[in-house]
Amino acid sequence: MPSLGDVQPQSMHFAEPLGLASGAVLRDYTLAYETYGTLNAAKSNAVLVCHALNASHHVAGTYAGKEKSEGWWDNLVGPGKPLDTDRFFVIGVNNPGSCFGSTGPTHPNPDPAAQGRPYGSDFPVVTVEDWVDAQARLITALGIERLAAVIGGSLGGMQALDWSLRYPHRLVQCVAVATAPNLSAQNIAFNEVARRAIVTDPEFHGGHYAEHGVIPRRGLRVARMIGHITYLSDDAMEAKFGRDLANAAFGYSTQGIEFQIEGYLRHQGDKFSEYFDANTYLLITRALDYFDPARAHGGDLAATFAAARCRFQLVSFTTDWRFAPTRSREIVKALVDNRLDVSYAEIAAPHGHDAFLLDDPRYHGVLRACFANLAKELA
Amino acid sequence: MPSLGDVQPQSMHFAEPLGLASGAVLRDYTLAYETYGTLNAAKSNAVLVCHALNASHHVAGTYAGKEKSEGWWDNLVGPGKPLDTDRFFVIGVNNPGSCFGSTGPTHPNPDPAAQGRPYGSDFPVVTVEDWVDAQARLITALGIERLAAVIGGSLGGMQALDWSLRYPHRLVQCVAVATAPNLSAQNIAFNEVARRAIVTDPEFHGGHYAEHGVIPRRGLRVARMIGHITYLSDDAMEAKFGRDLANAAFGYSTQGIEFQIEGYLRHQGDKFSEYFDANTYLLITRALDYFDPARAHGGDLAATFAAARCRFQLVSFTTDWRFAPTRSREIVKALVDNRLDVSYAEIAAPHGHDAFLLDDPRYHGVLRACFANLAKELA
Repeated sequence: MPSLGDVQPQSMHFAEPLGLASGAVLRDYTLAYETYGTLNAAKSNAVLVCHALNASHHVAGTYAGKEKSEGWWDNLVGPGKPLDTDRFFVIGVNNPGSCFGSTGPTHPNPDPAAQGRPYGSDFPVVTVEDWVDAQARLITALGIERLAAVIGGSLGGMQALDWSLRYPHRLVQCVAVATAPNLSAQNIAFNEVARRAIVTDPEFHGGHYAEHGVIPRRGLRVARMIGHITYLSDDAMEAKFGRDLANAAFGYSTQGIEFQIEGYLRHQGDKFSEYFDANTYLLITRALDYFDPARAHGGDLAATFAAARCRFQLVSFTTDWRFAPTRSREIVKALVDNRLDVSYAEIAAPHGHDAFLLDDPRYHGVLRACFANLAKELA
Repeated sequence: MPSLGDVQPQSMHFAEPLGLASGAVLRDYTLAYETYGTLNAAKSNAVLVCHALNASHHVAGTYAGKEKSEGWWDNLVGPGKPLDTDRFFVIGVNNPGSCFGSTGPTHPNPDPAAQGRPYGSDFPVVTVEDWVDAQARLITALGIERLAAVIGGSLGGMQALDWSLRYPHRLVQCVAVATAPNLSAQNIAFNEVARRAIVTDPEFHGGHYAEHGVIPRRGLRVARMIGHITYLSDDAMEAKFGRDLANAAFGYSTQGIEFQIEGYLRHQGDKFSEYFDANTYLLITRALDYFDPARAHGGDLAATFAAARCRFQLVSFTTDWRFAPTRSREIVKALVDNRLDVSYAEIAAPHGHDAFLLDDPRYHGVLRACFANLAKELA
């Protein structure tokens, strides 16, 4: 399959303040984004891709001269791929609060009292709703009134769902993969432990670690290790690592690495702590916790989706215990109750939550068909 | 149901060195234990209770004048209870490496070079096999050749299983609840994250925090929070906490408590960090990781249990995702393959792994019947 080749990140500054769900205001902000393919004359073929926890606007293609710089959903987005850039104009956007380009905690706090220091933990709490509002402004600025589709997985799926509620007339198709109408108590619990690991790291310094020239690496490592366990299925971990030893025999040590799974997790934690910002981790896990569009409707998900007008494609994976198929079925039921046009695929895949990033042929087949149908309408 | 009332902890010193699986030697040690009921003249009615991660020899009864001092399995052990102390002489023993009385990391290191300082992280790594050997010596010292039963849940169940392999002629009945023939990769992964949280706490000081007058509380808190999530089922957590808010409205804070589940986990972490020793936590999770009696038999569990001679009662709980029913069924199959006498109960209970400590009537009914049958043989 041909790739997009080298792509260029772009950015757009918004001088108009963004009112947030918390009541706070982001007084001005920049969004990093990328586009792939060509916007047609009718401006009807744009697809917005929303990212999850550990991703960015760099959805597809590579950065010139940079090794391993492939976009996070490059297996899905490109010429001839399920989300075909020969037919669609695809937009990847980085959300405010991120550490990958859009205005976030590592950027200077415009408040004069901050004297040019980074926001750190003073960056306002952002929600899925805030992100969708910021994305909608970008779409408007790009001259697009109505998106052909909004697609996302996991936290990105929550943003896609929220588009259908917040801007019901501005998208034809919502594609929400491996997502949920809200986090369960167990989901929140895992997020909370990860946050505690970060904020109780002595190098967190109340979130102003940058001013101290340090990074709460220990906390970030533990947070990532916890996250990683929940992204994989028990079966996938068993198949990949099982009880394989790291060395020829046990070293009988409480601190050494005895099993390969331990080395793998430590490596994942180390890598993550090198590039991810701790305040961003707190913000993004909180956005996950807060997302619950049915709360304003007394918990009634069917009443919530009465506002929606677009078509829906939902996908879940059988071994995803973080956002289990039962959670997608709750959404499907609410959509069906509203007689909305919904297609749902429950994919038997062994990879747990991570499956949404992989190229399982049945999964990609579903998305290919979904976008092929959409492309026909544009023609 | 009448309780045992006040009980007295006892202890026994063993001057003979204990050779450990690691090759290290525990040169002398003390075991804390408790007994309930009366040993009969034939010394045939003794039942050994093995503890799991966060427990001790204090299985049943209360400590005089001490509030909330009920033993951890008091709902199971006592006069007229499923493990009936009117019929059985029940022994609770604390394992070496613990922080509740038996020789462990908080005790003075007898090595002259240590100059009377506590073992700390120099306490040798102990395994389930080592614990069973230490327990067997206690049983011998109490004048008991053959136990009526060995019972334990979770890590305690592993010890009960190991008795059947290591001392096949010294028990009539093995009762192994909510346990597994070894930890899965996911189980090990959770243990490893908890250990990393502890050893990367700056106040861990390589395991010699006592000499610095500090405790790695941050790490212990995070470790306990992770553990707690895995002890409860997703459903139980959902039923108990769901998305209930801690306050009337969101505070929009990454560090505050927004959901009740967060406050609950923090409270559990705080409590645990007040009384549990960090080195003990490392040792006990490692003992869990190492347990794998089939390893010496090329992974063949049936070949492993060819050594066993006793009867078996296994119990698992449907919502236990830490030690799922499938793991108990592996053991049952290996026992059946050896034509051993095995009874297995899979209890539909909502409480996850914690169910083994609760008094679900079907669960306790199974154990009551098991011990009643055993008592008949003694008569």
